[in-house]
Amino acid sequence: MLNSKRPTASVSIELRWPNGGSFGPEELALIETIRVERSIIGASRALGLSYRKCWLIVDMLNRCFESPVVVTFPGRRNAGAEITQFGERLAALYRSIGRHASVSSKKALEELTASLDWTFDPKARAAAPERDLG
Amino acid sequence: MLNSKRPTASVSIELRWPNGGSFGPEELALIETIRVERSIIGASRALGLSYRKCWLIVDMLNRCFESPVVVTFPGRRNAGAEITQFGERLAALYRSIGRHASVSSKKALEELTASLDWTFDPKARAAAPERDLG
Repeated sequence: MLNSKRPTASVSIELRWPNGGSFGPEELALIETIRVERSIIGASRALGLSYRKCWLIVDMLNRCFESPVVVTFPGRRNAGAEITQFGERLAALYRSIGRHASVSSKKALEELTASLDWTFDPKARAAAPERDLG
Repeated sequence: MLNSKRPTASVSIELRWPNGGSFGPEELALIETIRVERSIIGASRALGLSYRKCWLIVDMLNRCFESPVVVTFPGRRNAGAEITQFGERLAALYRSIGRHASVSSKKALEELTASLDWTFDPKARAAAPERDLG
């Protein structure tokens, strides 16, 4: 980015736990926004997601591990939620995995970025699938 | 996996290109299956995906870069498709990024796997979201 006029590619990480749980960019964003907003409803507004969706992610995270990731205080005025020490550790390890992957993939991403077609439009299609039976 | 009775966590990588394209596990699986099946329709059957979905992924990949990833031979008997040299390079670099991420995240994943709740059921829910206003 600093040495190039063109934006760089990015690596997005999804962790899959052997108990069926997962942790990815959406979970990290929710944890980081709950930390700032100090509530699930505040985080849902800040992220433009439904409260229900945010609550379900928090519920999944809290059931996935032996320690909770987010604690809520339903009795507190204006309600409230906080990230636990374990939740902060989870977020920190996830960010660290992402940083390492960004560094170690740098050369490969530069090579592939050099091959990109800059006229690409993700929403366009070359032709109807019916026309090509490869 | 070799030294543990419990399965390990895994890292799934999604690459996001600055022109709006992306490359992840689904694209890799399609490339590797087209290579084996030598056709898009054969790959769609082997993967249990619709032909239309596979064709749209191939179309996206072929428009995303200056070089095609898959070439098709609609005139050939039983049709047919092949992975280009560039497509093989793309797949190899993606696999390499995944291998590096798996190695560098090993300690973090072991730490987090040790905190998993093994009774976790991804489909269960602790309570209705309406009951908790955190």
